[in-house]
Amino acid sequence: MRITSLSNPRVKHVVALRDKRQRDEDGLMVVEGFDPLSMALECGVRLHTVFICPELFKPAHDPDDHMRLLQRAQASGAPIIETSRPVFEKMAYRDGPDGWLAIALKPAFALADIRMPTDQPALILAAEAVEKPGNLGAMLRTCDAAGVHAFLFCDPKADVTNPNVVRASQGALFSVPVAQCSNAEALGWLRARGVRIVASTPNLVRGRPPLPFTEFDFRQPCAIFVGEEKYGLSDFWLEQADATVRIPMFGRINSLNVSISAALLVYEAVRQRKA
Amino acid sequence: MRITSLSNPRVKHVVALRDKRQRDEDGLMVVEGFDPLSMALECGVRLHTVFICPELFKPAHDPDDHMRLLQRAQASGAPIIETSRPVFEKMAYRDGPDGWLAIALKPAFALADIRMPTDQPALILAAEAVEKPGNLGAMLRTCDAAGVHAFLFCDPKADVTNPNVVRASQGALFSVPVAQCSNAEALGWLRARGVRIVASTPNLVRGRPPLPFTEFDFRQPCAIFVGEEKYGLSDFWLEQADATVRIPMFGRINSLNVSISAALLVYEAVRQRKA
Repeated sequence: MRITSLSNPRVKHVVALRDKRQRDEDGLMVVEGFDPLSMALECGVRLHTVFICPELFKPAHDPDDHMRLLQRAQASGAPIIETSRPVFEKMAYRDGPDGWLAIALKPAFALADIRMPTDQPALILAAEAVEKPGNLGAMLRTCDAAGVHAFLFCDPKADVTNPNVVRASQGALFSVPVAQCSNAEALGWLRARGVRIVASTPNLVRGRPPLPFTEFDFRQPCAIFVGEEKYGLSDFWLEQADATVRIPMFGRINSLNVSISAALLVYEAVRQRKA
Repeated sequence: MRITSLSNPRVKHVVALRDKRQRDEDGLMVVEGFDPLSMALECGVRLHTVFICPELFKPAHDPDDHMRLLQRAQASGAPIIETSRPVFEKMAYRDGPDGWLAIALKPAFALADIRMPTDQPALILAAEAVEKPGNLGAMLRTCDAAGVHAFLFCDPKADVTNPNVVRASQGALFSVPVAQCSNAEALGWLRARGVRIVASTPNLVRGRPPLPFTEFDFRQPCAIFVGEEKYGLSDFWLEQADATVRIPMFGRINSLNVSISAALLVYEAVRQRKA
Protein backbone atom coordinates (compact mmCIF):
# COMPACT_ATOMS: atom_id res chain seq x y z
CA MET A 1 0.00 0.00 0.00
CA ARG A 2 1.30 3.44 -0.89
CA ILE A 3 -0.31 6.77 0.00
CA THR A 4 0.22 9.71 -2.32
CA SER A 5 -2.79 11.83 -1.46
CA LEU A 6 -2.36 14.59 1.10
CA SER A 7 -6.03 14.30 1.97
CA ASN A 8 -5.90 10.58 2.79
CA PRO A 9 -7.71 10.10 6.12
CA ARG A 10 -4.76 8.17 7.62
CA VAL A 11 -2.53 11.15 6.93
CA LYS A 12 -5.03 13.49 8.47
CA HIS A 13 -5.21 11.24 11.53
CA VAL A 14 -1.44 11.46 12.10
CA VAL A 15 -1.64 15.24 11.90
CA ALA A 16 -4.64 15.28 14.28
CA LEU A 17 -2.58 13.34 16.86
CA ARG A 18 -0.42 16.42 17.41
CA ASP A 19 -3.31 17.49 19.61
CA LYS A 20 -3.28 16.13 23.15
CA ARG A 21 -7.05 15.74 23.29
CA GLN A 22 -6.97 13.61 20.16
CA ARG A 23 -4.19 11.46 21.61
CA ASP A 24 -6.09 10.99 24.88
CA GLU A 25 -9.35 10.20 23.09
CA ASP A 26 -7.75 7.64 20.76
CA GLY A 27 -5.20 6.26 23.23
CA LEU A 28 -2.60 6.74 20.51
CA MET A 29 0.58 8.75 19.98
CA VAL A 30 3.05 9.40 17.19
CA VAL A 31 6.64 8.14 17.29
CA GLU A 32 8.79 9.84 14.71
CA GLY A 33 12.30 9.02 13.59
CA PHE A 34 14.45 5.91 13.23
CA ASP A 35 15.97 6.00 16.73
CA PRO A 36 12.83 6.66 18.79
CA LEU A 37 10.94 4.06 16.75
CA SER A 38 13.70 1.47 17.27
CA MET A 39 13.63 2.15 20.99
CA ALA A 40 9.81 1.94 21.11
CA LEU A 41 9.96 -1.50 19.47
CA GLU A 42 12.81 -2.64 21.68
CA CYS A 43 10.84 -1.61 24.76
CA GLY A 44 7.68 -3.40 23.74
CA VAL A 45 5.55 -0.41 22.76
CA ARG A 46 2.72 -1.66 20.54
CA LEU A 47 2.50 -0.11 17.10
CA HIS A 48 -0.74 0.67 15.33
CA THR A 49 0.62 1.69 11.90
CA VAL A 50 4.10 2.32 10.54
CA PHE A 51 4.68 4.84 7.74
CA ILE A 52 7.89 4.87 5.73
CA CYS A 53 9.28 7.00 2.95
CA PRO A 54 12.49 5.30 1.76
CA GLU A 55 13.65 8.28 -0.28
CA LEU A 56 13.97 10.23 3.00
CA PHE A 57 16.07 7.54 4.73
CA LYS A 58 19.30 9.05 6.06
CA PRO A 59 22.76 7.66 5.40
CA ALA A 60 23.47 7.82 9.17
CA HIS A 61 21.92 4.33 9.17
CA ASP A 62 22.98 1.90 6.46
CA PRO A 63 20.52 -0.05 4.27
CA ASP A 64 20.81 -3.14 6.49
CA ASP A 65 19.76 -1.10 9.54
CA HIS A 66 16.70 0.10 7.66
CA MET A 67 15.88 -3.44 6.56
CA ARG A 68 16.21 -4.76 10.11
CA LEU A 69 13.93 -2.06 11.53
CA LEU A 70 11.40 -2.81 8.80
CA GLN A 71 11.48 -6.50 9.67
CA ARG A 72 11.06 -5.81 13.37
CA ALA A 73 8.14 -3.49 12.65
CA GLN A 74 6.53 -6.14 10.42
CA ALA A 75 7.12 -8.84 13.01
CA SER A 76 5.29 -6.68 15.55
CA GLY A 77 2.19 -7.13 13.40
CA ALA A 78 1.73 -3.47 12.48
CA PRO A 79 0.77 -2.64 8.90
CA ILE A 80 3.58 -0.87 7.01
CA ILE A 81 2.47 1.89 4.67
CA GLU A 82 4.73 3.60 2.20
CA THR A 83 4.01 7.23 1.38
CA SER A 84 5.17 9.79 -1.14
CA ARG A 85 7.59 12.41 0.08
CA PRO A 86 5.03 15.27 0.23
CA VAL A 87 2.67 13.06 2.23
CA PHE A 88 5.42 12.07 4.65
CA GLU A 89 6.53 15.64 5.09
CA LYS A 90 2.96 16.63 5.88
CA MET A 91 2.74 13.99 8.62
CA ALA A 92 6.19 14.69 10.03
CA TYR A 93 6.37 17.08 12.94
CA ARG A 94 10.00 17.95 12.56
CA ASP A 95 11.95 19.47 9.70
CA GLY A 96 14.15 17.08 7.78
CA PRO A 97 12.24 13.88 8.62
CA ASP A 98 14.16 10.63 8.23
CA GLY A 99 11.43 8.55 6.58
CA TRP A 100 10.22 6.70 9.72
CA LEU A 101 7.02 7.46 11.61
CA ALA A 102 4.54 5.31 13.48
CA ILE A 103 1.28 5.57 15.31
CA ALA A 104 1.73 3.71 18.59
CA LEU A 105 -0.64 2.69 21.37
CA LYS A 106 -0.02 5.20 24.11
CA PRO A 107 1.58 3.49 27.12
CA ALA A 108 -0.34 4.16 30.33
CA PHE A 109 2.52 6.04 32.01
CA ALA A 110 0.83 5.08 35.29
CA LEU A 111 2.30 4.85 38.78
CA ALA A 112 0.70 1.41 39.12
CA ASP A 113 3.07 0.04 36.45
CA ILE A 114 6.28 1.26 38.10
CA ARG A 115 8.34 -1.44 39.81
CA MET A 116 10.90 -0.58 42.45
CA PRO A 117 14.30 -2.32 42.44
CA THR A 118 14.69 -5.09 45.02
CA ASP A 119 18.51 -5.25 45.00
CA GLN A 120 19.38 -1.60 45.61
CA PRO A 121 17.86 1.59 47.05
CA ALA A 122 15.44 3.31 44.66
CA LEU A 123 16.61 6.38 42.76
CA ILE A 124 13.77 8.41 41.28
CA LEU A 125 13.71 11.73 39.46
CA ALA A 126 10.50 13.71 39.82
CA ALA A 127 9.65 16.90 37.99
CA GLU A 128 6.76 19.10 39.04
CA ALA A 129 4.93 21.12 36.39
CA VAL A 130 7.88 21.49 34.01
CA GLU A 131 6.62 23.12 30.83
CA LYS A 132 9.24 22.86 28.11
CA PRO A 133 9.37 19.71 25.98
CA GLY A 134 13.12 20.17 25.50
CA ASN A 135 13.67 20.08 29.26
CA LEU A 136 11.50 16.99 29.68
CA GLY A 137 13.30 15.24 26.84
CA ALA A 138 16.72 16.06 28.29
CA MET A 139 15.65 14.81 31.73
CA LEU A 140 14.43 11.53 30.23
CA ARG A 141 17.79 11.07 28.45
CA THR A 142 19.55 11.71 31.76
CA CYS A 143 17.31 9.15 33.51
CA ASP A 144 18.14 6.58 30.84
CA ALA A 145 21.88 7.24 31.00
CA ALA A 146 22.08 7.34 34.80
CA GLY A 147 19.94 4.22 35.23
CA VAL A 148 17.28 6.04 37.27
CA HIS A 149 14.50 3.63 38.29
CA ALA A 150 11.58 5.92 37.49
CA PHE A 151 10.71 9.37 36.26
CA LEU A 152 7.61 10.91 37.84
CA PHE A 153 6.01 13.85 36.09
CA CYS A 154 3.81 15.44 38.76
CA ASP A 155 0.96 17.89 38.12
CA PRO A 156 2.17 17.99 34.51
CA LYS A 157 1.82 21.17 32.45
CA ALA A 158 3.07 19.39 29.34
CA ASP A 159 2.31 15.89 28.07
CA VAL A 160 5.09 13.35 27.68
CA THR A 161 3.51 12.08 24.45
CA ASN A 162 3.90 15.55 22.89
CA PRO A 163 5.89 15.01 19.66
CA ASN A 164 8.58 17.44 20.84
CA VAL A 165 9.12 15.45 24.04
CA VAL A 166 9.33 12.16 22.13
CA ARG A 167 11.87 13.73 19.81
CA ALA A 168 13.95 15.47 22.47
CA SER A 169 14.04 12.29 24.55
CA GLN A 170 15.51 10.38 21.60
CA GLY A 171 13.33 7.46 22.66
CA ALA A 172 14.20 7.56 26.38
CA LEU A 173 10.47 8.06 26.96
CA PHE A 174 10.18 4.33 26.24
CA SER A 175 13.34 3.05 27.93
CA VAL A 176 12.70 4.82 31.25
CA PRO A 177 9.75 3.85 33.52
CA VAL A 178 7.61 7.01 33.41
CA ALA A 179 4.47 7.98 35.32
CA GLN A 180 2.36 11.10 34.90
CA CYS A 181 0.36 11.75 38.05
CA SER A 182 -0.95 14.34 40.46
CA ASN A 183 1.19 15.62 43.32
CA ALA A 184 -1.07 13.84 45.82
CA GLU A 185 -0.80 10.50 44.00
CA ALA A 186 2.99 10.75 43.83
CA LEU A 187 3.22 11.61 47.52
CA GLY A 188 1.09 8.64 48.59
CA TRP A 189 2.97 6.27 46.32
CA LEU A 190 6.41 7.40 47.57
CA ARG A 191 5.38 7.36 51.24
CA ALA A 192 3.97 3.84 50.91
CA ARG A 193 7.36 2.69 49.60
CA GLY A 194 9.51 4.50 52.16
CA VAL A 195 11.18 6.66 49.53
CA ARG A 196 12.64 9.89 50.93
CA ILE A 197 11.58 13.13 49.26
CA VAL A 198 14.54 15.35 48.42
CA ALA A 199 13.52 18.79 47.20
CA SER A 200 15.87 20.94 45.15
CA THR A 201 15.57 24.63 45.98
CA PRO A 202 17.90 27.60 46.38
CA ASN A 203 15.72 29.08 49.15
CA LEU A 204 15.25 28.74 52.90
CA VAL A 205 12.43 26.36 53.80
CA ARG A 206 10.77 26.90 57.18
CA GLY A 207 13.72 29.14 58.05
CA ARG A 208 16.30 26.45 57.30
CA PRO A 209 18.81 26.64 54.45
CA PRO A 210 19.02 23.73 52.00
CA LEU A 211 22.08 21.47 52.20
CA PRO A 212 24.73 21.73 49.45
CA PHE A 213 23.80 18.76 47.26
CA THR A 214 27.15 17.03 47.54
CA GLU A 215 26.70 16.86 51.33
CA PHE A 216 23.39 14.97 51.22
CA ASP A 217 23.52 11.17 51.50
CA PHE A 218 21.85 9.93 48.31
CA ARG A 219 22.54 6.25 49.11
CA GLN A 220 19.13 5.89 50.75
CA PRO A 221 15.97 5.31 48.67
CA CYS A 222 15.12 8.77 47.39
CA ALA A 223 13.10 10.77 44.91
CA ILE A 224 14.83 13.94 43.72
CA PHE A 225 12.31 16.69 43.02
CA VAL A 226 12.88 19.62 40.67
CA GLY A 227 10.30 22.29 39.95
CA GLU A 228 8.85 24.34 37.17
CA GLU A 229 11.28 26.44 35.09
CA LYS A 230 10.37 29.89 36.44
CA TYR A 231 9.15 29.35 39.96
CA GLY A 232 10.72 26.11 41.13
CA LEU A 233 8.92 23.64 43.38
CA SER A 234 5.54 24.50 44.87
CA ASP A 235 4.97 24.68 48.63
CA PHE A 236 3.36 21.24 48.39
CA TRP A 237 6.74 19.55 47.89
CA LEU A 238 8.78 22.01 49.96
CA GLU A 239 6.52 21.21 52.93
CA GLN A 240 6.57 17.45 52.35
CA ALA A 241 10.31 17.23 51.76
CA ASP A 242 12.39 15.04 54.05
CA ALA A 243 15.41 17.08 52.98
CA THR A 244 16.12 20.14 50.86
CA VAL A 245 19.27 20.48 48.78
CA ARG A 246 20.78 23.28 46.73
CA ILE A 247 23.36 23.49 43.99
CA PRO A 248 26.05 26.00 45.01
CA MET A 249 26.27 28.96 42.65
CA PHE A 250 28.98 31.60 42.45
CA GLY A 251 27.91 33.88 39.59
CA ARG A 252 25.83 36.93 38.86
CA ILE A 253 22.78 35.28 37.35
CA ASN A 254 22.80 32.10 39.36
CA SER A 255 20.06 30.16 37.68
CA LEU A 256 20.58 26.77 36.10
CA ASN A 257 18.39 25.18 33.49
CA VAL A 258 16.06 22.73 35.26
CA SER A 259 17.26 19.75 33.24
CA ILE A 260 20.83 20.61 34.20
CA SER A 261 19.99 20.87 37.90
CA ALA A 262 18.26 17.50 37.66
CA ALA A 263 21.29 15.89 36.00
CA LEU A 264 23.71 17.27 38.62
CA LEU A 265 21.59 15.83 41.43
CA VAL A 266 21.03 12.46 39.76
CA TYR A 267 24.71 11.99 38.88
CA GLU A 268 25.78 12.98 42.39
CA ALA A 269 23.61 10.10 43.61
CA VAL A 270 25.25 7.81 41.03
CA ARG A 271 28.71 8.95 42.16
CA GLN A 272 27.95 8.30 45.82
CA ARG A 273 26.40 4.91 45.14
CA LYS A 274 29.39 3.73 43.08
CA ALA A 275 31.95 5.00 45.59
CA MET B 1 10.75 60.33 20.91
CA ARG B 2 8.14 57.74 20.11
CA ILE B 3 8.06 55.46 17.08
CA THR B 4 4.70 54.28 15.80
CA SER B 5 5.58 53.49 12.18
CA LEU B 6 6.45 49.90 11.31
CA SER B 7 8.56 51.18 8.42
CA ASN B 8 10.74 53.45 10.57
CA PRO B 9 14.38 52.82 9.57
CA ARG B 10 15.45 52.22 13.20
CA VAL B 11 12.87 49.47 13.46
CA LYS B 12 14.08 47.93 10.23
CA HIS B 13 17.64 48.08 11.52
CA VAL B 14 16.78 46.07 14.63
CA VAL B 15 15.12 43.43 12.46
CA ALA B 16 18.12 43.38 10.11
CA LEU B 17 20.42 42.64 13.09
CA ARG B 18 18.89 39.17 13.32
CA ASP B 19 21.29 38.41 10.49
CA LYS B 20 24.86 37.56 11.54
CA ARG B 21 26.41 39.34 8.56
CA GLN B 22 24.58 42.52 9.49
CA ARG B 23 25.77 42.21 13.11
CA ASP B 24 29.36 41.65 12.01
CA GLU B 25 29.26 44.51 9.52
CA ASP B 26 27.81 46.97 12.03
CA GLY B 27 29.61 45.66 15.12
CA LEU B 28 26.23 45.65 16.85
CA MET B 29 23.89 43.12 18.42
CA VAL B 30 20.42 43.08 19.95
CA VAL B 31 19.80 42.49 23.66
CA GLU B 32 16.18 41.70 24.37
CA GLY B 33 14.41 41.44 27.69
CA PHE B 34 14.64 43.08 31.12
CA ASP B 35 17.06 40.54 32.64
CA PRO B 36 19.60 40.24 29.80
CA LEU B 37 19.58 44.04 29.40
CA SER B 38 20.14 44.55 33.13
CA MET B 39 23.05 42.12 33.03
CA ALA B 40 24.53 43.78 29.93
CA LEU B 41 24.50 47.16 31.70
CA GLU B 42 25.87 45.68 34.91
CA CYS B 43 28.73 44.10 32.95
CA GLY B 44 29.67 47.28 31.13
CA VAL B 45 28.31 46.44 27.69
CA ARG B 46 27.91 49.71 25.77
CA LEU B 47 24.42 50.44 24.49
CA HIS B 48 23.70 52.14 21.18
CA THR B 49 19.92 52.60 21.52
CA VAL B 50 17.32 51.42 24.02
CA PHE B 51 13.73 50.76 22.96
CA ILE B 52 10.94 50.49 25.50
CA CYS B 53 7.23 49.77 25.32
CA PRO B 54 5.85 50.34 28.83
CA GLU B 55 2.49 48.72 28.07
CA LEU B 56 4.37 45.42 27.60
CA PHE B 57 6.23 45.64 30.94
CA LYS B 58 5.63 42.49 32.98
CA PRO B 59 4.48 42.48 36.60
CA ALA B 60 7.38 40.10 37.43
CA HIS B 61 9.34 43.33 37.94
CA ASP B 62 7.68 46.12 39.90
CA PRO B 63 7.45 49.74 38.66
CA ASP B 64 10.51 50.75 40.71
CA ASP B 65 12.61 48.06 38.99
CA HIS B 66 11.56 49.41 35.60
CA MET B 67 12.35 52.95 36.68
CA ARG B 68 15.80 51.96 37.96
CA LEU B 69 16.66 50.13 34.72
CA LEU B 70 15.49 53.16 32.74
CA GLN B 71 17.71 55.44 34.82
CA ARG B 72 20.72 53.13 34.39
CA ALA B 73 20.14 52.98 30.65
CA GLN B 74 19.88 56.78 30.49
CA ALA B 75 23.00 57.20 32.62
CA SER B 76 24.88 55.01 30.14
CA GLY B 77 24.29 57.74 27.58
CA ALA B 78 22.14 55.69 25.24
CA PRO B 79 19.10 57.34 23.69
CA ILE B 80 15.83 55.87 24.97
CA ILE B 81 13.08 55.49 22.38
CA GLU B 82 9.51 54.57 23.20
CA THR B 83 7.58 52.60 20.61
CA SER B 84 4.01 51.54 20.03
CA ARG B 85 3.14 47.95 20.80
CA PRO B 86 2.96 46.81 17.14
CA VAL B 87 6.37 48.36 16.46
CA PHE B 88 7.91 46.69 19.52
CA GLU B 89 6.42 43.35 18.61
CA LYS B 90 7.89 43.68 15.13
CA MET B 91 11.38 44.29 16.56
CA ALA B 92 11.12 41.60 19.23
CA TYR B 93 12.54 38.23 18.36
CA ARG B 94 10.64 36.28 20.95
CA ASP B 95 6.91 35.87 21.55
CA GLY B 96 5.53 37.74 24.52
CA PRO B 97 8.22 40.45 24.66
CA ASP B 98 8.57 42.29 27.99
CA GLY B 99 8.94 45.82 26.63
CA TRP B 100 12.75 46.07 26.83
CA LEU B 101 15.13 45.81 23.87
CA ALA B 102 18.45 47.46 23.07
CA ILE B 103 20.98 47.64 20.31
CA ALA B 104 24.39 47.13 21.94
CA LEU B 105 27.96 47.41 20.72
CA LYS B 106 29.04 43.84 20.12
CA PRO B 107 31.77 42.87 22.62
CA ALA B 108 34.87 41.46 20.90
CA PHE B 109 34.55 38.00 22.47
CA ALA B 110 38.28 37.68 21.83
CA LEU B 111 40.85 35.43 23.47
CA ALA B 112 43.07 38.46 23.96
CA ASP B 113 40.59 39.90 26.46
CA ILE B 114 40.39 36.81 28.67
CA ARG B 115 42.24 37.09 31.98
CA MET B 116 43.27 34.00 33.92
CA PRO B 117 42.84 33.92 37.70
CA THR B 118 46.03 34.47 39.69
CA ASP B 119 44.80 33.03 43.00
CA GLN B 120 43.51 29.62 41.86
CA PRO B 121 43.93 27.12 39.03
CA ALA B 122 42.04 28.09 35.88
CA LEU B 123 38.76 26.31 35.12
CA ILE B 124 37.63 26.74 31.53
CA LEU B 125 34.74 25.24 29.58
CA ALA B 126 35.34 24.90 25.84
CA ALA B 127 32.73 23.84 23.29
CA GLU B 128 33.70 22.83 19.76
CA ALA B 129 31.27 23.46 16.93
CA VAL B 130 28.11 23.23 19.06
CA GLU B 131 25.15 24.19 16.87
CA LYS B 132 22.06 24.74 19.00
CA PRO B 133 21.53 28.15 20.59
CA GLY B 134 19.65 26.53 23.48
CA ASN B 135 22.69 24.39 24.32
CA LEU B 136 25.05 27.36 24.13
CA GLY B 137 22.75 29.42 26.33
CA ALA B 138 22.48 26.64 28.92
CA MET B 139 26.29 26.21 28.94
CA LEU B 140 26.76 29.94 29.52
CA ARG B 141 24.31 29.83 32.46
CA THR B 142 26.26 26.90 33.89
CA CYS B 143 29.55 28.80 33.49
CA ASP B 144 28.06 31.78 35.31
CA ALA B 145 26.66 29.67 38.15
CA ALA B 146 29.78 27.53 38.57
CA GLY B 147 32.14 30.51 38.43
CA VAL B 148 34.03 29.18 35.41
CA HIS B 149 36.84 31.57 34.40
CA ALA B 150 36.20 31.49 30.65
CA PHE B 151 34.03 29.91 28.00
CA LEU B 152 35.77 29.21 24.70
CA PHE B 153 33.62 28.61 21.65
CA CYS B 154 35.97 26.92 19.16
CA ASP B 155 35.38 26.59 15.42
CA PRO B 156 31.89 27.92 16.08
CA LYS B 157 28.96 26.80 13.96
CA ALA B 158 26.61 29.23 15.70
CA ASP B 159 27.23 32.82 16.79
CA VAL B 160 27.01 33.77 20.46
CA THR B 161 25.33 37.05 19.53
CA ASN B 162 22.46 35.14 17.90
CA PRO B 163 19.26 36.42 19.60
CA ASN B 164 18.36 32.88 20.69
CA VAL B 165 21.71 32.46 22.45
CA VAL B 166 21.37 35.81 24.21
CA ARG B 167 17.90 34.83 25.35
CA ALA B 168 18.74 31.26 26.40
CA SER B 169 21.79 32.53 28.33
CA GLN B 170 19.57 34.90 30.34
CA GLY B 171 22.40 37.41 30.12
CA ALA B 172 25.22 35.02 31.09
CA LEU B 173 26.76 35.87 27.73
CA PHE B 174 27.77 39.16 29.39
CA SER B 175 28.67 37.92 32.88
CA VAL B 176 30.99 35.13 31.67
CA PRO B 177 34.30 35.86 29.87
CA VAL B 178 33.62 34.45 26.39
CA ALA B 179 35.91 34.01 23.38
CA GLN B 180 34.98 32.79 19.91
CA CYS B 181 38.05 31.46 18.13
CA SER B 182 39.47 28.79 15.86
CA ASN B 183 40.65 25.45 17.23
CA ALA B 184 44.25 26.42 16.47
CA GLU B 185 43.99 29.73 18.31
CA ALA B 186 42.46 28.08 21.36
CA LEU B 187 45.17 25.43 21.41
CA GLY B 188 48.01 27.95 21.26
CA TRP B 189 46.42 30.12 23.92
CA LEU B 190 45.86 27.21 26.33
CA ARG B 191 49.34 25.74 25.78
CA ALA B 192 50.96 29.13 26.41
CA ARG B 193 49.20 29.26 29.78
CA GLY B 194 49.89 25.70 30.85
CA VAL B 195 46.21 24.78 30.91
CA ARG B 196 45.57 21.04 30.57
CA ILE B 197 43.18 19.94 27.83
CA VAL B 198 40.55 17.51 29.11
CA ALA B 199 38.44 16.01 26.33
CA SER B 200 35.03 14.51 27.02
CA THR B 201 34.32 11.44 24.89
CA PRO B 202 32.63 8.06 25.33
CA ASN B 203 35.12 6.40 22.94
CA LEU B 204 38.59 4.87 23.04
CA VAL B 205 41.28 7.35 21.99
CA ARG B 206 44.50 5.84 20.59
CA GLY B 207 43.30 2.51 21.98
CA ARG B 208 42.89 3.84 25.50
CA PRO B 209 39.56 4.17 27.30
CA PRO B 210 38.62 7.53 28.80
CA LEU B 211 38.68 7.87 32.59
CA PRO B 212 35.35 8.03 34.49
CA PHE B 213 35.04 11.77 35.07
CA THR B 214 34.86 11.54 38.84
CA GLU B 215 38.30 9.87 38.85
CA PHE B 216 40.09 12.69 37.04
CA ASP B 217 41.85 15.32 39.18
CA PHE B 218 40.23 18.60 38.15
CA ARG B 219 42.19 20.64 40.72
CA GLN B 220 44.88 21.45 38.16
CA PRO B 221 44.42 24.28 35.61
CA CYS B 222 42.19 22.71 32.97
CA ALA B 223 39.97 23.34 30.02
CA ILE B 224 37.07 20.90 29.71
CA PHE B 225 36.19 20.26 26.07
CA VAL B 226 32.82 19.08 24.82
CA GLY B 227 31.96 18.50 21.17
CA GLU B 228 29.25 19.04 18.63
CA GLU B 229 25.79 17.58 19.41
CA LYS B 230 25.83 14.69 16.94
CA TYR B 231 29.45 13.74 16.46
CA GLY B 232 31.25 14.89 19.59
CA LEU B 233 34.78 16.27 19.57
CA SER B 234 36.83 16.23 16.38
CA ASP B 235 40.13 14.37 16.10
CA PHE B 236 41.88 17.71 16.53
CA TRP B 237 41.02 17.84 20.25
CA LEU B 238 41.07 14.10 20.85
CA GLU B 239 44.66 14.06 19.61
CA GLN B 240 45.72 17.14 21.58
CA ALA B 241 44.03 16.08 24.80
CA ASP B 242 46.18 15.66 27.91
CA ALA B 243 43.40 13.47 29.31
CA THR B 244 40.12 12.01 28.14
CA VAL B 245 37.14 11.55 30.44
CA ARG B 246 33.75 9.93 30.08
CA ILE B 247 30.46 10.14 31.93
CA PRO B 248 29.40 6.64 32.98
CA MET B 249 26.10 5.59 31.42
CA PHE B 250 23.95 2.62 32.31
CA GLY B 251 20.96 2.85 29.98
CA ARG B 252 19.78 1.82 26.54
CA ILE B 253 20.23 5.10 24.69
CA ASN B 254 23.22 6.40 26.54
CA SER B 255 23.52 9.84 25.11
CA LEU B 256 23.39 12.96 27.21
CA ASN B 257 22.57 16.43 25.97
CA VAL B 258 25.87 18.28 25.44
CA SER B 259 24.99 21.07 27.86
CA ILE B 260 24.23 18.45 30.50
CA SER B 261 27.55 16.67 29.95
CA ALA B 262 29.32 20.02 30.24
CA ALA B 263 27.54 20.83 33.51
CA LEU B 264 28.37 17.45 35.06
CA LEU B 265 32.06 17.92 34.25
CA VAL B 266 32.23 21.52 35.41
CA TYR B 267 30.42 20.84 38.69
CA GLU B 268 32.63 17.82 39.37
CA ALA B 269 35.58 20.22 39.15
CA VAL B 270 33.79 22.60 41.53
CA ARG B 271 33.09 19.75 43.96
CA GLN B 272 36.73 18.61 43.97
CA ARG B 273 38.07 22.13 44.39
CA LYS B 274 35.80 22.91 47.36
CA ALA B 275 36.52 19.59 49.07
